[in-house]
Amino acid sequence: MAANIQLDENGRLRHFLSIEGLNREIITEILDTAESFTSVTDRIIKKVPILRGKTVANLFFEASTRTRSTFELAEQRLSADILSLNVDTSATVKGESLLDTIRNLEAMQIDMFVIRHKDSGSAHFFAQHVRPGVSVLNAGDGQHEHPTQAMLDMYTIRHHKQDFTRLRVAIVGDIMHSRVARSQIHALNILNTAEVRVIAPKTLLPIDTESLGVQLYDNIEQGLRDVDVVIMLRLQKERMRGAFLPSEKEYFNLFGLTQERLNRARPDAIVMHPGPANRGVEIESSVMDGSQSVILQQVGFGISVRMAVMSMIVGQSSRGLSSRGQSSLQGSA
Amino acid sequence: MAANIQLDENGRLRHFLSIEGLNREIITEILDTAESFTSVTDRIIKKVPILRGKTVANLFFEASTRTRSTFELAEQRLSADILSLNVDTSATVKGESLLDTIRNLEAMQIDMFVIRHKDSGSAHFFAQHVRPGVSVLNAGDGQHEHPTQAMLDMYTIRHHKQDFTRLRVAIVGDIMHSRVARSQIHALNILNTAEVRVIAPKTLLPIDTESLGVQLYDNIEQGLRDVDVVIMLRLQKERMRGAFLPSEKEYFNLFGLTQERLNRARPDAIVMHPGPANRGVEIESSVMDGSQSVILQQVGFGISVRMAVMSMIVGQSSRGLSSRGQSSLQGSA
Amino acid sequence: MAANIQLDENGRLRHFLSIEGLNREIITEILDTAESFTSVTDRIIKKVPILRGKTVANLFFEASTRTRSTFELAEQRLSADILSLNVDTSATVKGESLLDTIRNLEAMQIDMFVIRHKDSGSAHFFAQHVRPGVSVLNAGDGQHEHPTQAMLDMYTIRHHKQDFTRLRVAIVGDIMHSRVARSQIHALNILNTAEVRVIAPKTLLPIDTESLGVQLYDNIEQGLRDVDVVIMLRLQKERMRGAFLPSEKEYFNLFGLTQERLNRARPDAIVMHPGPANRGVEIESSVMDGSQSVILQQVGFGISVRMAVMSMIVGQSSRGLSSRGQSSLQGSA
Repeated sequence: MAANIQLDENGRLRHFLSIEGLNREIITEILDTAESFTSVTDRIIKKVPILRGKTVANLFFEASTRTRSTFELAEQRLSADILSLNVDTSATVKGESLLDTIRNLEAMQIDMFVIRHKDSGSAHFFAQHVRPGVSVLNAGDGQHEHPTQAMLDMYTIRHHKQDFTRLRVAIVGDIMHSRVARSQIHALNILNTAEVRVIAPKTLLPIDTESLGVQLYDNIEQGLRDVDVVIMLRLQKERMRGAFLPSEKEYFNLFGLTQERLNRARPDAIVMHPGPANRGVEIESSVMDGSQSVILQQVGFGISVRMAVMSMIVGQSSRGLSSRGQSSLQGSA
Repeated sequence: MAANIQLDENGRLRHFLSIEGLNREIITEILDTAESFTSVTDRIIKKVPILRGKTVANLFFEASTRTRSTFELAEQRLSADILSLNVDTSATVKGESLLDTIRNLEAMQIDMFVIRHKDSGSAHFFAQHVRPGVSVLNAGDGQHEHPTQAMLDMYTIRHHKQDFTRLRVAIVGDIMHSRVARSQIHALNILNTAEVRVIAPKTLLPIDTESLGVQLYDNIEQGLRDVDVVIMLRLQKERMRGAFLPSEKEYFNLFGLTQERLNRARPDAIVMHPGPANRGVEIESSVMDGSQSVILQQVGFGISVRMAVMSMIVGQSSRGLSSRGQSSLQGSA
Repeated sequence: MAANIQLDENGRLRHFLSIEGLNREIITEILDTAESFTSVTDRIIKKVPILRGKTVANLFFEASTRTRSTFELAEQRLSADILSLNVDTSATVKGESLLDTIRNLEAMQIDMFVIRHKDSGSAHFFAQHVRPGVSVLNAGDGQHEHPTQAMLDMYTIRHHKQDFTRLRVAIVGDIMHSRVARSQIHALNILNTAEVRVIAPKTLLPIDTESLGVQLYDNIEQGLRDVDVVIMLRLQKERMRGAFLPSEKEYFNLFGLTQERLNRARPDAIVMHPGPANRGVEIESSVMDGSQSVILQQVGFGISVRMAVMSMIVGQSSRGLSSRGQSSLQGSA
């Protein structure tokens, strides 16, 4: 899939579809911009006029409370006009219908589309068909990518660990079906992470992992040894029904993150999860709520990162604008 | 139905319920006002404070993604507070309950109601019962009228053809059940359109069409000859089940708009459709996407027209205010 | 249940969970503040910037069009950012899941939660678990309390009758299961109402009513004699199926408010109902629409009261701010 559709002729972000195809410069700019939206007290600068007079359409062909909520909050805090549609997938199965949906919404002068869809490649499809000046953000497409999730994960890691080039990062779970893992692996590699490990049952390891430049483990005790970051994936329970996995209990016994297992990682290792977590399936409740967990922080960073991507796409550097935003707010409050 | 309820004692727009009963002056003012909301580059001036501090309630007793989305965008771009309710019709079948709904919402200091309801006359019913200062917009009532749709159609025609008095316009499809067609015919007549033709199977021609001042055709080849504008109607598939219509395929064979049939119209004829279209039923896919189609333009004009009607109702002339809006935006951006 | 969780160390409102535990000073301040949001013409000052840059999350685990609409309008008129979620209760039955929901939303930098939930005590549970600076408003929890409803009722009574210490107030209906009645009784007692009467079938009288300091009646004719205020409760039809109640017709015959029965009250008595009313079950249609009914006024006052509570919680006195809001509005309009 052509990734350079994401950038304009000057190498600036136009769409945000996948981590694959982005360079370190852009990814670092997103992280820096997100940081400017998070104040020293960990509270987001709540309202800036960066998207005032712009319209963002949230098209969720797949339900997702968390991702949708954080996008909507990011949009409100950027002062956008917002059109949120839960689109009935059954009505838009055919490519032509999806194209009709794009064309009709575009005719409503939408400036930016946020799209979540069960089909891999659907965000690219949208991006290929919108007219100049209109942007597309991928909020998760099939098993392909979930790039804003990966960016908030990178933000969280950098927040706690600074330098990626010295880090060992382990991703644990259903790598094969996870768009989150795909995006994370691309981002970690682009940021020159010292070592990226993938820990999963053999049935859930994708065939092409080696080409992704990761170390494979099917034993969690071995995989976690001396890592700085542990990223747990959500176990999709429907995988149980296929031949991929044994029972939940069995999965927990073999791959669940317990405190005992976590103790094999570095003492200052952090634990991450994209949520919502299945307590007692992929992660022990006490670990999720424990002192090494940064899972809830991730949620808040997700808003900053989404604000950053949207503000970069409309072509406004964050630092300049956040001060303009501040003064404007003072003017109107 | 008393149409003059729409105008106040000074002849200014108070409600917007039906095209029937409006004069050419008002209709032209709506078109002119809508034009002021559409910039030279076909992009709407995105945000003006005309409805700031006003509350608009969207009551959709019938679902409609497109009409509802364009109303909500128009309201946001006018800076209104918005309350959108999908009302379960089963809970409000009785007139008394509908009246209770009106009274309760009115008590919430709603300034403007946008209503879509399956019963003809329901918007008038609302308008008759709201208190002074509160306005009602009809977003489609049964088989009666859909006046904002007709206004955006007139806007589209004027945009491309200017002078109505020299035009031949054909409306093709299920005229009998179509509130869109009723509103269009009224509007075209008020604007002194040279000739309005109606093309439909005999079973779908309303009995009173002659009183509407239109020419009847049950043959599409003859009806399209030398027209300047072709307006296709959406075929409601549930009509198939009644005795009104043969199969979809048969309908397409007899009344579907193909390029070949369109060639009988004037070479510069435009093709319109209120959407969503059934490709391959009332219109051939290639015609819908072809160079004569202005179907997607209609969607965008729908926002301008709805902004125009709402701004006229709150009693603010558009041109004066759009410049105020602009300067205010510059102040706060 | 510890009620003082509602107040901070300076005795200012931090959460708004129950009328029980509040003092007369706070309740009077809410009523005074609400009054400042209602202009002389009974129209709310529509837009003030008191919550600009703050985010309010509406979590409705139980559906309610009226309560939710008035909260959303109050929030918009205070210029808040708004996240509204209809939460599927089946997904959050366990306490731990509810806590996860709180934690995740909190991580999104929500400043204020409005919660409606079928379980008594759920708003307190939320309040006990949110971090400093985050507030919780109870929009109805099980059979426990519905404090903003009680406050709008007190506002309505004071608007018409001024001095509570001379009033006889009767509450009629299913007292036992009604959170509205519980909140009303507490509020009326705190405001030193001369006499609070409760009128209900014996099967619907709670056991602890005497400790609530009310007079009990199971005969409506006797109970209404000489009262100044009649508050009807909505009859939950599902009570019919239990052994609590006879048929609707029988209930109306025994406890329905007819004009004849109302004539036993004082001639200037007002009739109230939290809505939605069952016409012909707990109240005769003509009484509901009659000259003594203030039921629709209650709805509008509900917005003022909710604005008041939210503005007090963010720690801004209404009168100072409403003038700031006004001038800001003039600046931006």
